Amino acid sequence: MSESYSPSRPCPVKNVPQWDFEADVLVVGFGAAGASAAIDAAETGASVTLFEVASGSGGTSAMAGGDIYLGGNGGTSAQRANGFEDDTEDFFRYMMMAGGPDADEERVRLYAEGALDHHEWLKKQGVPYRDTYIPGKPVMPGTGDCLILSGSEFAWPFKDEAKPCPRGHLPEATGETGGFFLLDALTKRVNSLGVDVQFDTRALALITDESGHVCGLVIEANRETRFARARGGVILCAGGFALNEEMLRQYAPIRKRLADDGLSGGYDDGSGIRMGMSVGGAAIHMDELFLTLPFYPPESHVKGMLINDKGSRFINEDAYGGRVAHFIASQIGEKFYLLVDDEIFEQPSEYSKIEIASVGETWEEIEADLGFTRGTLVSSVEVYNRHAADGEDPLFNKDANWIKPLDTPPFAALACHLKEAYYPFFTLGGLSVRPTGEVLTTDGVPIPGLYAAGRTACGLPRWGKGYSSGMSLGDCTFFGRMAGVAASKRANN
Amino acid sequence: MSESYSPSRPCPVKNVPQWDFEADVLVVGFGAAGASAAIDAAETGASVTLFEVASGSGGTSAMAGGDIYLGGNGGTSAQRANGFEDDTEDFFRYMMMAGGPDADEERVRLYAEGALDHHEWLKKQGVPYRDTYIPGKPVMPGTGDCLILSGSEFAWPFKDEAKPCPRGHLPEATGETGGFFLLDALTKRVNSLGVDVQFDTRALALITDESGHVCGLVIEANRETRFARARGGVILCAGGFALNEEMLRQYAPIRKRLADDGLSGGYDDGSGIRMGMSVGGAAIHMDELFLTLPFYPPESHVKGMLINDKGSRFINEDAYGGRVAHFIASQIGEKFYLLVDDEIFEQPSEYSKIEIASVGETWEEIEADLGFTRGTLVSSVEVYNRHAADGEDPLFNKDANWIKPLDTPPFAALACHLKEAYYPFFTLGGLSVRPTGEVLTTDGVPIPGLYAAGRTACGLPRWGKGYSSGMSLGDCTFFGRMAGVAASKRANN
Repeated sequence: MSESYSPSRPCPVKNVPQWDFEADVLVVGFGAAGASAAIDAAETGASVTLFEVASGSGGTSAMAGGDIYLGGNGGTSAQRANGFEDDTEDFFRYMMMAGGPDADEERVRLYAEGALDHHEWLKKQGVPYRDTYIPGKPVMPGTGDCLILSGSEFAWPFKDEAKPCPRGHLPEATGETGGFFLLDALTKRVNSLGVDVQFDTRALALITDESGHVCGLVIEANRETRFARARGGVILCAGGFALNEEMLRQYAPIRKRLADDGLSGGYDDGSGIRMGMSVGGAAIHMDELFLTLPFYPPESHVKGMLINDKGSRFINEDAYGGRVAHFIASQIGEKFYLLVDDEIFEQPSEYSKIEIASVGETWEEIEADLGFTRGTLVSSVEVYNRHAADGEDPLFNKDANWIKPLDTPPFAALACHLKEAYYPFFTLGGLSVRPTGEVLTTDGVPIPGLYAAGRTACGLPRWGKGYSSGMSLGDCTFFGRMAGVAASKRANN
Repeated sequence: MSESYSPSRPCPVKNVPQWDFEADVLVVGFGAAGASAAIDAAETGASVTLFEVASGSGGTSAMAGGDIYLGGNGGTSAQRANGFEDDTEDFFRYMMMAGGPDADEERVRLYAEGALDHHEWLKKQGVPYRDTYIPGKPVMPGTGDCLILSGSEFAWPFKDEAKPCPRGHLPEATGETGGFFLLDALTKRVNSLGVDVQFDTRALALITDESGHVCGLVIEANRETRFARARGGVILCAGGFALNEEMLRQYAPIRKRLADDGLSGGYDDGSGIRMGMSVGGAAIHMDELFLTLPFYPPESHVKGMLINDKGSRFINEDAYGGRVAHFIASQIGEKFYLLVDDEIFEQPSEYSKIEIASVGETWEEIEADLGFTRGTLVSSVEVYNRHAADGEDPLFNKDANWIKPLDTPPFAALACHLKEAYYPFFTLGGLSVRPTGEVLTTDGVPIPGLYAAGRTACGLPRWGKGYSSGMSLGDCTFFGRMAGVAASKRANN
């Protein structure tokens, strides 16, 4: 029955035979963005129906570590408890840099000023947080501690523009289950507010009235086509397109250089973005991805030297892994190497998928063993070591904390082939929206009745080289809420 | 009066007060794509009205050198006259590589097999060609000769996958006026076919019927709003978005790293692409640009060595300038350098905007003079020279023709700051289309009545690192014609 509907084609309201559902606000997707939208829409008095294609809540959000990027206004309780003062302007400037050349200033300003209140809101929903801090560069610690460094704050060029501070906030949860606990709390809250949740229902297409305004959704439920009317608006929170091969090829071919796995709860098929595009919504920054090429843990390896397969360094190794990954992927070769000495070497973690390619008593030996052109790897090490002795990195401004000469034999080169490692990625591009979630056409005019949040929208994170962990969930929850309020208001006008 | 219309919002046919124009096929834009579409639509029996915002024909196409990428089927007359045999499969393989990770195989196959006939068609339209060849790596020769090397055919990695051959074909014209002569011929042909050409008319919006099919155009002419009905289809040939700052920021922020000039006849405002998006057309590869960073002429400088501001090489210098430019722009620094010795040095051309930064009797002197970290520039030169003596480049596989040791003092480093040079660019992203020009939604279904060609569509050129001169005009004319035939056919069905 659903053959005649597609996310790429809106259904004119005149073709709707009957309304099977009706609410002030319709939400598509029960991840962090959809849950937050439903909560704030319900709290501002709207009746809400939430459609989720899976049989339970969570989506891709529940698979994440649960990290949320927070700070400003002097600092969160966790920041202050650990001696970090976080000025709103520093928070703002970092987020603007992280957003890249098209950072959304209005959005970043709202977030920088509102993040502390948002943290309180998260706690009120029942998300548990400690005030503890894990120093260094932990990756998915899973200890239940809260505060971590989750971006490039202490790394060049970011540290020069904004006073650094750790800003990743993890829920109290053991194992890598922070996202699950976050979603568990939000789900309970959605249920307690009496939101009408319809699981196992797939949004097939938007419904538009004669003026092109969005007034509902075509739904598939139990293999039947159903029609849902939205009095205020439809909020698309259906995730990104990490699982849509056609869209990845058309929009983000860089991922072809890397291994194959998209991070997804199973439904990031791009249908939310496509529904928005079907009514003239502009999808922007569709080429931007969050990539990881985790050459650490162990953290001591950040003190190593990354080189490309020509033997040249190309990035400060202490930048956030997502940033480093983009610089690796833009090198001409298919492999990269991490050079370490005996003092910093530890067994690479299973997670990092970087393996010992060569061990030697001299760098010359390793250079020859790996078939590097003579004088390439060795001269890179020579230059690095000469300045490392003074804690300096004149080429890439790596922070002194992560610098030491690689001069304690035996030496090793660890290697990673882009195509062989497991690199979960997710998509950052999506519908162009106002902070309220209003979906915009190419001339910046809202399409009445249509909202988007989370990775269906292009939000705070929109530049792979600047992405910092916690920005996506921060954006999902903060702007999900704003979309819920905006759609609710429209219903009552 | 036109305030209520926007390319981002289609006009429902029920709001059309009267039809001021009516034709089988409406064409928007009188550049190479629009002219070719109009010619073949008219020749297959359609009545055609062509709307052009400027007061004359030409568009951005007329500003180009007029280079058209041709070959295959054994070779064009110019190729064969100069001893080049060009097999269709080599032509096909090169075009596939040049199209990048999402090359459109169907489109490339049609073009590779049809390019020779298309050349004959161009001659028949009155475009004048000699059969002469300019060897080497000429840039905009302006001599009236025909055949030039216009891509990376003889450069790694392309030369390993397809037998190299020069394939750029310039019209006979003195000065850089090839595009003008091309358009002049096509314009005369359009006129002789009785196409109704409306200059000084701006396409404001598409008109859609109740099913969402495209059935016309809203036009502004003499500050009045006019309505044009298309019995067969509307063909959007309105260029790219090189002049639309908002779109550049949202889709192609890489150009922010470079100087400011978009190559345009004055109207590449993205309105064609936006009209397509307004009815659910998918715009793809919007982040891809043709960039140039012309570090030559003089041609002898291709024998020099390009390094980034860390002193590392990063690309084979003999690749096409557009490809080199993308690798320069993905380096972390804002400057690049070309190292030359006395044997190859000539005064840089005005055009190349690269200036002498340092001269010295040794490379050590130049390294120190420019403030490079000691041992960076010098070791890059040392490695290069050692293998150059044997005509080899183990790092980047530069072709032996362009390799010589840089060992004849005095030496010089020429420098170019990305922000200071004049780099005309144009956009490669556009509407997703079939080879027939049919505009596709995100699920690959055509939007009835809507066609696009030229840079309003995403065609053969869709990857900046692979772009070769002549691909855009080849695509404009070849697939412009196909769109004209397809829309004409639809009118007669």
